[in-house]
Amino acid sequence: MADASQFLIPRGFRFGAIKAGLKKSGRPDFALIVADAPAAAAAAFTANRVIAAPLILDKQHLRATGSRVRLAAINAGNANCAAGEAGLAAARATCAAAAQLFHCLPEEVFPSSTGVIGVPLPVEKLIAVLPALAESLGSGFDNFQQVAQAILTTDTVEKTSFARLEIPTPAGPTQEVRIAALCKGSGMIHPQLVPHATMLVYILTDAAVEPPILDAYLRPSIDLSFNRISVDGDTSTNDTVLLLASGAGGATIGPNNAAFADALTQVCTSLARQMVADGEGITHVVELRIEGAANDADALRIAKAIAHSPLVKTAWAGADPNWGRLIAAIGYSGALIDPNRIDIDFGVLPICRDGARAPSFDESAAHAYIAQPQFSISIHLHQGPGSCTFWTTDLTVQYIHINADYST
Amino acid sequence: MADASQFLIPRGFRFGAIKAGLKKSGRPDFALIVADAPAAAAAAFTANRVIAAPLILDKQHLRATGSRVRLAAINAGNANCAAGEAGLAAARATCAAAAQLFHCLPEEVFPSSTGVIGVPLPVEKLIAVLPALAESLGSGFDNFQQVAQAILTTDTVEKTSFARLEIPTPAGPTQEVRIAALCKGSGMIHPQLVPHATMLVYILTDAAVEPPILDAYLRPSIDLSFNRISVDGDTSTNDTVLLLASGAGGATIGPNNAAFADALTQVCTSLARQMVADGEGITHVVELRIEGAANDADALRIAKAIAHSPLVKTAWAGADPNWGRLIAAIGYSGALIDPNRIDIDFGVLPICRDGARAPSFDESAAHAYIAQPQFSISIHLHQGPGSCTFWTTDLTVQYIHINADYST
Repeated sequence: MADASQFLIPRGFRFGAIKAGLKKSGRPDFALIVADAPAAAAAAFTANRVIAAPLILDKQHLRATGSRVRLAAINAGNANCAAGEAGLAAARATCAAAAQLFHCLPEEVFPSSTGVIGVPLPVEKLIAVLPALAESLGSGFDNFQQVAQAILTTDTVEKTSFARLEIPTPAGPTQEVRIAALCKGSGMIHPQLVPHATMLVYILTDAAVEPPILDAYLRPSIDLSFNRISVDGDTSTNDTVLLLASGAGGATIGPNNAAFADALTQVCTSLARQMVADGEGITHVVELRIEGAANDADALRIAKAIAHSPLVKTAWAGADPNWGRLIAAIGYSGALIDPNRIDIDFGVLPICRDGARAPSFDESAAHAYIAQPQFSISIHLHQGPGSCTFWTTDLTVQYIHINADYST
Repeated sequence: MADASQFLIPRGFRFGAIKAGLKKSGRPDFALIVADAPAAAAAAFTANRVIAAPLILDKQHLRATGSRVRLAAINAGNANCAAGEAGLAAARATCAAAAQLFHCLPEEVFPSSTGVIGVPLPVEKLIAVLPALAESLGSGFDNFQQVAQAILTTDTVEKTSFARLEIPTPAGPTQEVRIAALCKGSGMIHPQLVPHATMLVYILTDAAVEPPILDAYLRPSIDLSFNRISVDGDTSTNDTVLLLASGAGGATIGPNNAAFADALTQVCTSLARQMVADGEGITHVVELRIEGAANDADALRIAKAIAHSPLVKTAWAGADPNWGRLIAAIGYSGALIDPNRIDIDFGVLPICRDGARAPSFDESAAHAYIAQPQFSISIHLHQGPGSCTFWTTDLTVQYIHINADYST
């Protein structure tokens, strides 16, 4: 494709995917993102205390290289988690094979895995197809999309986001900065990244950004995006966000560049919302706007209690304006509240005032509003300046089918 | 009925139920438990910060009377919660009408409500049928069962438990103590009672026990029973446990009576397990045995993370021995763990050893074991002496139907 989409892809990277035989579907399941030269990196990982083998290596590798990454090697279909020493050995073997092929250090390889937990990773399948995968790499939009598809598991659509910036230079002419990102995630989605994923996110830019500066951009963007979503409240053992800066575009980004920070946050927020919208079995995406909490932490507690309440989520599935379930979740969230000062609105519809049914409550209108595939719920606590925006989903029969289907 | 069941019911109480018209089904929905004279009381209430109107009154009343209760007035079909001043006024009106009828103080009335939150309670319906209800009271087993039925909401069966004790007396002959308890609870079940409940539990004994001593018996019994169950993780605004001692049986129970404490705990545990077994849409009851945690609080954290994980609960629904989901929940529980020292057994089947698949793991056997309607999962952390036993359920398509069905 020689169309405009070609100019969305940051310079300095190549992409490819192949079938290694891990997915039962037989679809491509092993992907590479390769920087032409070691790229500056910033990364964040799951807060789960059970951490998959590739994440253990990733942390070691970033320390060893001073946060430089030559390539990310990503398999879907097996999480390589809870596999003991064999799991670490499998991840190391992948890195060694890739390092040999790309003439880099094993520590410059960033492995990722997603899929079933507790089943040994058949690493020989990955190593066997690695040479063919390396030969297939390309820098085009199609190559990028191949990676976005190969890393999916229960996801139904690939998730990508792009941004372009013109950075002013002292000399006069502007310089172009491209940001492209891809991710997967549909179930076991409640990322809690430390400083924070079976969410896997790869964000690429062709700006030159030193690793500590890159890290300073990544943290706040994550806090406003991936750490503000939940499908099912299950925090994965494999969640990973990797941001790579190749410098191949010519522009250099220093600290406190508001335009770059904004673009990065927008890309992250877009991906976060795409994951929620592709949540397992979901039929409604809900934006929760919590305001007037004692502090931001309390606002987040309330959002999470609501987002994780099966009773609230099933009410949404049925478009049931049963706001009493919201009240109950607010009450057990642990946040400081005054039950008699809670206001709730569905969109612009007043639902609850001062902790009781709003005088103008209109059940039919409320039902019609939340029957929509996307809707927002605003909650005001009148306790202080704390607020947050959070994206979550309903809980449907289809979610149960996706996760309960089992055949021996 | 003049059969042996008559001798299960503690002396000094009368029971009755009637149709007040709150339940859409038209079934009885208003019940009374009346002590012949004010009974010593101990009670526990939900930790939810949104507290239903009757619970607010209950606390005031117990303080005002020094924990003496003449009667409990319980309606199902409306929670009288999030109803503002009107909710409190409705609860007060019920108490006033009952007090007049039974020639007691309004503060000696203990109101309870369960049902939908946020809808005004039509208290005039309760007051209208109160005289007929008062006339229908009886002290028999059938009367007791009528209360157990009337307080149900989404429950499918009444839940009762009984115990009889022979207490030695200094004089020689033993004295009989009867304990009878009834409860409701099926959804919004994750009681966190303070010093701990839409679980409503009424426990009656005909022993004479002073209120502070009664309270000292109730607390540990609750901690080992109602605070160790979860259907959906939603802590209700209305959960209540009330223990009444009429003294009409003749025996007096002082502090530290191990036999009474054991009997009470057994009755509470039986009711707790009955609620889980009648959980909304459930097909499996799971006993979690957590051992080797750093401390008991950590053991409970792990049990709750597992019990509240939609991915774990849906795997159980499908009899899927996907223990990786257990590992993930353990990891994000917040408890201190070593991922490489986790052992998991399904019944007597080794599933996970040292954080990885047990060498003798047999997927077919594991599947067959958890296909049973009741099964146990043991988890050993090898961190310390902490342990707990916890009862929970799977999450099924039927749960979604029960809670998502809505018609305008």
